[in-house]
Amino acid sequence: MGYEQPKMDKLTQQLQFVREIDKLKGVLRRSFLLDGSRAENSAEHSWHLALMALTLAEHANEAVDVSRVVKMVLIHDIVEIDAGDTFLYDQVGNASKAEREQQASARIFGLLPAAQRDELITLWQEFEGRETADSRFANALDRLIPLLHNYHNRGKAWRENNITHGRVIQMVGHIAEGSSALWDYALNLINDAVEKGYLAP
Amino acid sequence: MGYEQPKMDKLTQQLQFVREIDKLKGVLRRSFLLDGSRAENSAEHSWHLALMALTLAEHANEAVDVSRVVKMVLIHDIVEIDAGDTFLYDQVGNASKAEREQQASARIFGLLPAAQRDELITLWQEFEGRETADSRFANALDRLIPLLHNYHNRGKAWRENNITHGRVIQMVGHIAEGSSALWDYALNLINDAVEKGYLAP
Repeated sequence: MGYEQPKMDKLTQQLQFVREIDKLKGVLRRSFLLDGSRAENSAEHSWHLALMALTLAEHANEAVDVSRVVKMVLIHDIVEIDAGDTFLYDQVGNASKAEREQQASARIFGLLPAAQRDELITLWQEFEGRETADSRFANALDRLIPLLHNYHNRGKAWRENNITHGRVIQMVGHIAEGSSALWDYALNLINDAVEKGYLAP
Repeated sequence: MGYEQPKMDKLTQQLQFVREIDKLKGVLRRSFLLDGSRAENSAEHSWHLALMALTLAEHANEAVDVSRVVKMVLIHDIVEIDAGDTFLYDQVGNASKAEREQQASARIFGLLPAAQRDELITLWQEFEGRETADSRFANALDRLIPLLHNYHNRGKAWRENNITHGRVIQMVGHIAEGSSALWDYALNLINDAVEKGYLAP
């Protein structure tokens, strides 16, 4: 600390990080694209969330700093490069998730110069903690988007994993913490999904 | 104008946009992932650029507003949903590119409420114009990243498309406008690519 590395070294470190995160494009989620054609990867999912943050911020329950929310969702899944994507409904996987992701954050963000490393780890922890307005809204978006995907591809991932209405309701509650408007929308979507047979009652 | 639509209608419009842009995940670029395993799509590419903006901003030639650069790169390729990805080295395609993209921006951003539509169209035009510090830096990143990809997968897209050193140099000049440090880095990479046989002299 205290010792400032020469500019060129910082660039080398930063580009090492830029190259490393290319791997997030190879981490597959359980949800499928809206057209159902293939599984979604975590990099394109993060891009989608950032666009949602930019366009839906007015529906947050509390005032949010949109740029911070964007930054948060852009980095929220980077730990999956080491820890993998843990399906929302996987109980065993979710038990060990925190520790695996903690180690991943240290290694991957650790490729960056110290100040940037610390900033991004702190921001990622804030996302995970859901204790601030920005992180509550970011989490609401992260829980809403798989609903949209599942609804519009007629419940492909729900049906393949035997997910029922009750479990979906349990898992999307975080949406209400971040946005009542999006929560109302989500409830309508879920009820309609049951009615249409995309989701088991 | 003047007439403010009810909140619920705005949300419906915004979510229509959110669903529409899912299609960018299906627009394939000519460049391959760093590991060469598959072609990259424009959504995950945009995510990657946003992370570059966040981590490399200190190397911009002029002071930039990082949040604006992030926003700009997140939306810069959305027009490709209608207009397709035009390969940097495709002269015929690039002649009609501007008009095709103009129409695409009107249709796709036009799904949003008027104020957001206008803001994003203006931001996209700023990116295309390269007349501001933010857009010059955003364009520098957009030209640098395919170099990184091509270099690290040993010139896969260069070789498949018979691209030579001279054409690469011609096409990546925009990097210098946005960042001398990244330009120096790019030149070293290009020269080394020729030396290693990834790129024809």
